[in-house]
Amino acid sequence: MPKPAKHVFVCMQSRPPGHPRGSCGANGCQEVFEELMFQWQSRDLITHGVQVTGAGCLGPCTAGPNVLVYPEGIMYGGVKKEDVSEIVNGHLIGGEPVERLLMDPEIWG
Amino acid sequence: MPKPAKHVFVCMQSRPPGHPRGSCGANGCQEVFEELMFQWQSRDLITHGVQVTGAGCLGPCTAGPNVLVYPEGIMYGGVKKEDVSEIVNGHLIGGEPVERLLMDPEIWG
Repeated sequence: MPKPAKHVFVCMQSRPPGHPRGSCGANGCQEVFEELMFQWQSRDLITHGVQVTGAGCLGPCTAGPNVLVYPEGIMYGGVKKEDVSEIVNGHLIGGEPVERLLMDPEIWG
Repeated sequence: MPKPAKHVFVCMQSRPPGHPRGSCGANGCQEVFEELMFQWQSRDLITHGVQVTGAGCLGPCTAGPNVLVYPEGIMYGGVKKEDVSEIVNGHLIGGEPVERLLMDPEIWG
């Protein structure tokens, strides 16, 4: 496999209900990951050099679901299933990060 | 948290014994991850800008355990617990990838 042009990591961390750190799992990361994988397969994103991987905790738990794109190191926060198409079209294919979903630079920057 | 200078992803994928794709789990990724996390904590690698995250399948299953470092996109294969110090000292702190552990460029390159 070639080195990805865009390697997307989706936090899949879950914690028990009421845990003080919260978790991306509690905020709906599973359906974000599933939507991204669905688009990856159905739109053949591998031909655009896109790879998608589930990941453990990426850090800013209360601001999730978190989605991190390398090599740029662009972190998105509070991503919803409905945001996935915009990330795919705008960033993963189009090359321009989606400004409105960027993590607060005080948290990741 | 600041954006990591080196973000290390360790494949944590397991598959049942005898699965045709094999897995990093079957090849000992768990102890690689634990050693890396031990050194991360005990050597305070966060002060060097190092972050460590467990990950799902990174691709080249039969060549694992796989360890991937971004933003460079450097993939190591067949990593053993005993190799972790060399990766930490040489690459994560020293900035020079460990040549002898690099994934075959036919597989990742």
